[in-house]
Amino acid sequence: MSAKPVLQLNGLDLEKMAGTAEALKKDSVLAKFQFRAKNAWISGGENRSTIKDFYGAGAEDTSRGKPFVFTNGEPPVLLGDNEGANPVEFLLHALAGCVTTTFVLHAAARGIRIESISTELAGDIDLQGLLALDESVFPGYEQIRMKMDIKADCSDEALDELLRFTQKHSPVCNTVCRPVPVVVERVVNR
Amino acid sequence: MSAKPVLQLNGLDLEKMAGTAEALKKDSVLAKFQFRAKNAWISGGENRSTIKDFYGAGAEDTSRGKPFVFTNGEPPVLLGDNEGANPVEFLLHALAGCVTTTFVLHAAARGIRIESISTELAGDIDLQGLLALDESVFPGYEQIRMKMDIKADCSDEALDELLRFTQKHSPVCNTVCRPVPVVVERVVNR
Repeated sequence: MSAKPVLQLNGLDLEKMAGTAEALKKDSVLAKFQFRAKNAWISGGENRSTIKDFYGAGAEDTSRGKPFVFTNGEPPVLLGDNEGANPVEFLLHALAGCVTTTFVLHAAARGIRIESISTELAGDIDLQGLLALDESVFPGYEQIRMKMDIKADCSDEALDELLRFTQKHSPVCNTVCRPVPVVVERVVNR
Repeated sequence: MSAKPVLQLNGLDLEKMAGTAEALKKDSVLAKFQFRAKNAWISGGENRSTIKDFYGAGAEDTSRGKPFVFTNGEPPVLLGDNEGANPVEFLLHALAGCVTTTFVLHAAARGIRIESISTELAGDIDLQGLLALDESVFPGYEQIRMKMDIKADCSDEALDELLRFTQKHSPVCNTVCRPVPVVVERVVNR
């Protein structure tokens, strides 16, 4: 009795990866996903999200027994008590993760073996915007910079090309660097 | 001996809030903040961020003894093992938190007492973009919808007006709905 070996690269099952791509090529509706979160305000700058279900690959996902729970907070200088990282910091975490995962995925598709990736992010923001002290100040991040230290079994040129490709295809990176509509609706209780 | 009472609204110290606004009006350089994150790849779609220091109000912040640590993961349908929420889900958490905190802050500034805020978010995304199966498909969220259930001691009209004001001033909301440059640089090891 011999088990079939699982071909892995960068921690990804190459056969499953190719199968997913093939299935989506045949039926592009399977690529439509909806991600969700619920959030409840606690007090001041503290609030908490629960994240569990989502729709994708043609069905509601049932793989998660328990929700993920994350708490936003603010540091004392922003009137909080460090109850959690703050929302603009969580955005940096989302961006770092998405660029990294997109890079690792397409590296595997190209047969590039990644040894390590370490990233430092910094985002500049002028809080006159948030506080509405000057309506000419943009309230979002002015710019976000990422420095990625990547070790892999390929040339520097191949890494640079893959990094450009990654920026073009990372969902969070494109949600940040291009405009995405946010529709906010208030539930009216009658 | 009598302690001066702390005037609070929505969990925010109103005196400290007014003081912060006054200080920033006098010296707008104090409003310049830089937030940061470090991220390290683990395997496949799993990676981890640490968030601790930032610059703001004219100084490096020293209020956090330990870093916040967050793990990105992917569900099985996206080749992972639910090691954590995934990056596009963390972005929803960041957005929910920022809109909520911006709303609560400006409610306090207007003397509106918030009783509760519960928010549901849903974001649509076509993974043909991430997977580079169709270059015409936008890789980011197509749209994000937020439904906010808000209870407060003011009229529906005042809530609607405050919600429009919030959308215009929330840092994460504006980082999403308007284009923000992301500069990715590879560290070259010599």
